[in-house]
Amino acid sequence: MEEELKQMLNELNSLKQSLTDPSHRAPIDKLQLHVERLANLGNSGLVRRSKVKDMSAEVVDSNPYSRLMALQRMGIVENYESIREFSVAIVGVGGVGSVAAEMLTRCGIGRLLLYDYDKVELANMNRLFFRPEQVGMTKTDAAVQTLSDINPDVVLESYTLNITTVQGFDTFMSSLENKSFCKNKEGSGVDLVLSCVDNYEARMAVNQACNELNQTWMESGVSEDAVSGHIQLLIPGETACFACAPPLVVASGVDERTLKREGVCAASLPTTMGVVAGLLVQNTLKYLLKFGQVSPYLGYNSLKDFFPTMEMKPNPQCSNAACLQRQKEYLLEKPARDAAAKVKIEAEALLATEAPLHLDNEWSISVVDESELAKVDVKASDTLPEGLTRELPSADEYQTLHAEAPVSTIDDLEDLRKQLEALNSA
Amino acid sequence: MEEELKQMLNELNSLKQSLTDPSHRAPIDKLQLHVERLANLGNSGLVRRSKVKDMSAEVVDSNPYSRLMALQRMGIVENYESIREFSVAIVGVGGVGSVAAEMLTRCGIGRLLLYDYDKVELANMNRLFFRPEQVGMTKTDAAVQTLSDINPDVVLESYTLNITTVQGFDTFMSSLENKSFCKNKEGSGVDLVLSCVDNYEARMAVNQACNELNQTWMESGVSEDAVSGHIQLLIPGETACFACAPPLVVASGVDERTLKREGVCAASLPTTMGVVAGLLVQNTLKYLLKFGQVSPYLGYNSLKDFFPTMEMKPNPQCSNAACLQRQKEYLLEKPARDAAAKVKIEAEALLATEAPLHLDNEWSISVVDESELAKVDVKASDTLPEGLTRELPSADEYQTLHAEAPVSTIDDLEDLRKQLEALNSA
Repeated sequence: MEEELKQMLNELNSLKQSLTDPSHRAPIDKLQLHVERLANLGNSGLVRRSKVKDMSAEVVDSNPYSRLMALQRMGIVENYESIREFSVAIVGVGGVGSVAAEMLTRCGIGRLLLYDYDKVELANMNRLFFRPEQVGMTKTDAAVQTLSDINPDVVLESYTLNITTVQGFDTFMSSLENKSFCKNKEGSGVDLVLSCVDNYEARMAVNQACNELNQTWMESGVSEDAVSGHIQLLIPGETACFACAPPLVVASGVDERTLKREGVCAASLPTTMGVVAGLLVQNTLKYLLKFGQVSPYLGYNSLKDFFPTMEMKPNPQCSNAACLQRQKEYLLEKPARDAAAKVKIEAEALLATEAPLHLDNEWSISVVDESELAKVDVKASDTLPEGLTRELPSADEYQTLHAEAPVSTIDDLEDLRKQLEALNSA
Repeated sequence: MEEELKQMLNELNSLKQSLTDPSHRAPIDKLQLHVERLANLGNSGLVRRSKVKDMSAEVVDSNPYSRLMALQRMGIVENYESIREFSVAIVGVGGVGSVAAEMLTRCGIGRLLLYDYDKVELANMNRLFFRPEQVGMTKTDAAVQTLSDINPDVVLESYTLNITTVQGFDTFMSSLENKSFCKNKEGSGVDLVLSCVDNYEARMAVNQACNELNQTWMESGVSEDAVSGHIQLLIPGETACFACAPPLVVASGVDERTLKREGVCAASLPTTMGVVAGLLVQNTLKYLLKFGQVSPYLGYNSLKDFFPTMEMKPNPQCSNAACLQRQKEYLLEKPARDAAAKVKIEAEALLATEAPLHLDNEWSISVVDESELAKVDVKASDTLPEGLTRELPSADEYQTLHAEAPVSTIDDLEDLRKQLEALNSA
């Protein structure tokens, strides 16, 4: 548009010069003013920030990454900038997927692959992300429009297709396998697949693709009554796949398709979907940037603010052949995994005895008065003013109190042999 | 802009007609084409939906409220449309406040009051809501621009001011007291205040205003290291006020201002802020529309996906005089409250014995084969395939297992008298 307006100004200028009758100049001057005003409008509304080469930690208002690089300074993330090397595929760009895409875009993810076949409707406006002026556009086009404005550093690939069709599934598979973004990457061409679809069939298609590609993925879902949801991590062979166990949150006891008949639709809320997208992308960041504990499963019951967690092991009787194959590989790799874990633990123990606790004082924090500060700390964190009681223990106390029985692992070769036999006979 | 382009087309037309030399017409035709193309660009980008008079539950793609009205059909909310009568004030339009405002706007809240004195910077782009082209605008102006495009039905009031200044606090107070939106409303002019500020001083100002106005509010916060947050419900006199107890999530052991010195900034993530905004607005919807359990306090520890809850009673030694006054009133109103609760319980008991469980069958759901369905239900909800175990009980089981000791209430007049005396002597 900027170009078009500049061209118009030039054309008006040459037209004015070619006119001999001075009475014709006034309307042209007026037109020029119009065009200039439009150009100013455009300037205030369409400025895009330029790409940045490196993520800087510099604390200035003009740095879009200062608040993220601060995670590194604070010791939460070891190497934040490595986020630019990762590719994440988001299947389903609806109430959860679009918000997940925006979060990853604002975090500066390297590359996003977006899959959806649907169009934006006014009926989607009760959830975050899409805007009324995008009604009628495909969700993928609208998402690329918004996301590229927000962060031009992110490489966006959009696929307007239905992954449950034969052709759509093929394109889905080959796009996941494409390694042009990061040629030396092990495994598939993406680091994680996020499933943000709203039906069982599409989830089974994602499950099939990820089992075949040995691709780690995360599943998400929101209930038809809009008040609960969940996220789940699926590692082929290591955790249950989507076919190993039924999901916890689906239309209960009612066939899914009957909920979508004439005059009846599922409820949805921007709150529940925003929370689920936030938990999903938080788990994604923890997984990719290696910090905190990646949750194998996290539920969200909004009516009671209850957040169930659990772990699901693969089902040796799973109906999915690719899942059984991955399970077999996972069992066979156990000795190598154990050896690697042992080496790592030994190396860490060695490092812990050698290195000082803090190499440098990046924050320049000095203790003003040690005994005073210690007193304040105890008061702030451990005791409450009179009349107040703590209803629940802290996270650490809670985990100690509810320490789970150790997850049963295969402890000897005999067990391993038995499990492999069971898989082979399945 | 649309008007301007139309005017330009007219001017070009009259210019063309006034020109005698036909060689001058070609450049004008070209200019007309330019303007028409710009008008089309504008049409695709600037269409705003018109206001709607009533919220319809009709399931058509063009209805922005169908997915919300479905909450009513599903029995989650009794009267969703009552949301249009509510006013919510949001103090602080940053990473949490802006997303909370967008969620409430998309939910069709009646009226939003927004308070902030800050401007949009590129450094805010790692959180949801603001766009790079809004850099330099005040956060309130940018928010009104985006929110009015998203949902023209919401009445937006914005206050570009700092509530911690004397004048700012006065304007804040009088805006909360203004009842022009809903003249017959009891109490102040708003139904809820959401505190989404990022510092202690501003929280204390919100606390002061709400204690003085006897105004229920919700507080929210995100830690300086970006990986945890909380929301809290504060009812003057009934729960702890912000001065009764120190907040659980603040810069720990370090003075807040030292964190904001040259070259150092707090970390932030769109995920944590999105989750906190989602939990905050979910609690708001539960409070306003009377469904589910409103949480008195809900924490979010993202590293461990741990969500602590607790209840905090007011501190009889609170330093805030208005809080002590509200505590006194709350104690004095106890007999009336007990009587009202008794009447309500009796009325509900009477209703339960009289009314049938389901008056009509809105969903037209019929049981296909009772014994078959029962079997499926048991399998889906109670048992898991072989090899899988449930690690945690369901929400209902959990609450039974962890049933808290009954909260101590004042059971006789003697106790009540003692508590009042304690308050009076404080």
